[in-house]
Parts: sequence; structure tokens; C-alpha cells
Amino acid sequence: MDKLQIVKIGGNVIKDQKALKVFLADFSEIKVAKILVHGGGKEATQMAEKLGVPVQLIEGRRITNLPNLEIISMLYAGKLNKTIVAQLQAFDCNALGLSGADGNSITAKKRSPEPIDFGFVGDVTAVNEVLFNTLLTQNITPVCCAITHDKKGQLLNTNADTIASEIAIAMSSHFEVTLSYCFEKKGVLMDEEDENSVIPTLTSEKYKTLKKEKKIHSGMLPKIHNCFEALKKGVTQVCIGNPKMITGKVNHTQIQL
Amino acid sequence: MDKLQIVKIGGNVIKDQKALKVFLADFSEIKVAKILVHGGGKEATQMAEKLGVPVQLIEGRRITNLPNLEIISMLYAGKLNKTIVAQLQAFDCNALGLSGADGNSITAKKRSPEPIDFGFVGDVTAVNEVLFNTLLTQNITPVCCAITHDKKGQLLNTNADTIASEIAIAMSSHFEVTLSYCFEKKGVLMDEEDENSVIPTLTSEKYKTLKKEKKIHSGMLPKIHNCFEALKKGVTQVCIGNPKMITGKVNHTQIQL
Repeated sequence: MDKLQIVKIGGNVIKDQKALKVFLADFSEIKVAKILVHGGGKEATQMAEKLGVPVQLIEGRRITNLPNLEIISMLYAGKLNKTIVAQLQAFDCNALGLSGADGNSITAKKRSPEPIDFGFVGDVTAVNEVLFNTLLTQNITPVCCAITHDKKGQLLNTNADTIASEIAIAMSSHFEVTLSYCFEKKGVLMDEEDENSVIPTLTSEKYKTLKKEKKIHSGMLPKIHNCFEALKKGVTQVCIGNPKMITGKVNHTQIQL
Repeated sequence: MDKLQIVKIGGNVIKDQKALKVFLADFSEIKVAKILVHGGGKEATQMAEKLGVPVQLIEGRRITNLPNLEIISMLYAGKLNKTIVAQLQAFDCNALGLSGADGNSITAKKRSPEPIDFGFVGDVTAVNEVLFNTLLTQNITPVCCAITHDKKGQLLNTNADTIASEIAIAMSSHFEVTLSYCFEKKGVLMDEEDENSVIPTLTSEKYKTLKKEKKIHSGMLPKIHNCFEALKKGVTQVCIGNPKMITGKVNHTQIQL
């Protein structure tokens, strides 16, 4: 089986133009087939403020109403995705940007308005393996933003971590898939205050223990849950670390069943 | 040779959600391979106003400085392109949105700052026939916005009419290409005030005469020039008319050498 590396980057890399460029240079050096998934960063909130669009929060979570969905599609699928694609092209990586609607790459179902109506938020229902295969075969690198569609004409805001793991799972029947979640820390830390306390290997057993002892930062739990789900469903390798991890030269956490 | 229909729509269709939906329904009914090219409409100017970005004009023509390029990439490649793609998907047309950077589909050269510095505006240098062929072979319909790139990391604002004719010319070595320019009138009119004065066939000879007699609206001249260029360079058929023209049931102007 050929290898496929799927890398997810979040707001911390995206908001910093210099860091983004360094990351994209590293990413373009990956020699195997690759897919990039990017989140949005905080620009959407800033843009909503500039445009006078109110941002509604319920239990600290943002509601994606129509004006906010428009802002997200402008920023994530437009400015951000195209900036990334153009820069990768300059590094001779033949990138091609995708929302879930493009080539019907990722379909989703609008989340039920009960118990909380999050608005135009979608949960992934299918990944178009044929499309991703076609592009990868042509040596094209898909660059996916965190937007899906319902195949009925509606775009939907979708969690980028989940998009990355869903693509990884779907593609694992065709490739030996490595999924790398890049974020601001060097990995899963034993001590949140100590960047050097990276856990090199996090097994599901160790995870259970650490979770019980409340030693893992609560913000990390959904991310780690995604990692184990991906491994259970066929992904070969899942890593968490900072963007430099993709060069293979930096400590990070490897998640293992 | 297989047939390929390339359709360009402008601001008049795009700004009206209902008209856009009717057009996209008609477009998705086209049975041969097809490509859609869309302009931007006036939303970019409105967005610039909302965001307090000054719009600079020289000799009535807009300058694309960096803040305006950002707005264009948000609106054209983001909101507009993805809205169109999602709606086509609902009509079971497997659309995939492209800026020129995506898959390196269209490269351009930044226009010389002499005699007038138009900013980040590009003139098309190459169309990636291999990419378009790959997508069309997979029954995917490319939806191109009016943005290109210089392959060095820079996005460029490019005239949508020209993008349509350049794609048509490039693809004419693989397909029998029909290029349809949709705009607000029923075609090239003998009398600008009379919608029923459509010239059914405009030959280059007739065009020269009418131009000399100043009977053709000056705003139409660059568009018609594009049409003749496309025909000279291998495009089989070029039509100008309103969006309903693509159903084949409405009068329009056919341009002929």
C-alpha cells in the first residue's frame, strides 16, 4: 500500500503569516501523497465585528447563523484556502483547494436543532474517496477547508479536526495513512506548564489512567478522542505535535491503541 | 471530437439569487462536458465600502491593491464560487470550484505598472489543459472564478471574459468547443434601445462595417474582440446572449469569422 500523510493545521499557524510560510515549505517537502486540512483561526470573529455581524454564543460555543456562515465561506474557502494554495504552488506542490461541496468531496448532515441549535453546522456523513484518489493519482495535493455541504445546496460549518480524521479513515482502505494534528504545543503534555513534558507515546490504557487522574487538559480530550477513533477505524498512525513535527525531526506524541 | 460547452456569466446573473438559481438549473441540464466561468458582480465594491477599504480608480478603471485583492478572493473564490458549486451539486452537477492557483489551473503575469499601475491584475499566460481534461474525464464540471496566480505565491485579479476565452482556446485542441457569453441583453443589438434588434449572426465583415458606422455599443467591443480571437484560435462556436440562451431555445448572436 502507498503511504498518505494527512496534516491538520489550526488557527495558531494560520494567523501568523511567517509561521504559515515555514509550515507550507515543510509540508511541500513531504515526499509521499498528502492532504492538508486547515481550520480558520480567529479572523472570522474579527471580520464579523468589522461587518457588524453579531456573534451568538451558547454555552461558550459559537452559533453559525447565515451571516456568520457567509463570513466563514469568504474567509476559509476564499482568502485563507487560496492563500495557502497559491503559496504551496510557489513551493512546487500542486495544491488544489476544496470545500466539501467541491467535487462533492465531503457531505454532511445539518446538526439537529435539539437540544441546542448551532445553526449551519454539519456532521460528516461521507468522504468522496474516488475524488481524493483521482487527485492524488495525478500528484495533486488536496487542501481542505472546514466547510462541508448537504448535497441540497447548503454549505455547512464543520470541525476541521473531524474533517481530517474522517478523510483519514475513508482513505485508509486505499493507503497506509498517517494523520498529524499540528497545534501550538509540542504534543500531549504531562504538565501543561512544561513544554518539555511531552508524552512520546500515548496508549489508550495510559490515556484512560491520565484522564481519570485529570492530568490531561480538558481542551485536549475531543482531539485525543478523534485520534483513537481514527486508529480504531483503520488509520495506521496518529500524531499530535507542533507544526515542525511533520519534518520528522521534532518530538511529538504518538497515539497508539 | 467530444463537445465541450464553456459558459461565462457576469454580475447581472450573480447579483440576483433567483436568476442565478434558474441559470444554474439550466446549466446543469447541459448534456455535454461543461465549464462555468463567473465574474464577480458589484458585491466587491459594496464589501470594500463596508470594510472601509478605499476603492481607487484610474481612468474609470479599478485598481486592485492588496486589501481589494483580499476582498476579491473572499467574495469570488469564497462566497460566490462555493455558493454556485453547492447549488450545482444540488442539481446533480458534480461541480468543482477553481481559482487559477488550484491545481495550477491558470497562470498569469502581473500586468506591467507602466503606463498605469493596476495593482494585482494578471494577464493569462497558460491554461492547464491536463487538469481540465482530468476533471472533465471524471464527469466533474470546473467552476472558475476570475482569479489567477503567478506560480510564485501571488493571486491576481483577472478579467472573467478573458479567462473564459483562454480556457476555450486551450481546450479546443481536445474538444469541439462552444463558448457562450451570457450577459443582460439578448445578444449584440442593432439598436441599443430595442431588445428585439438582436443580430442573429455577426461575421467579422459585418462587425467591421457596424463598428465603422458606430452602431455597436462601445462597451461591447472588448467582448466581441474576445469572441473573434477565440474563433481565430480554434474555438468552434461563440455565442453572446442572455443566460436563457444556453437552453438553446432563445435568440442570441452567433459570432462568425
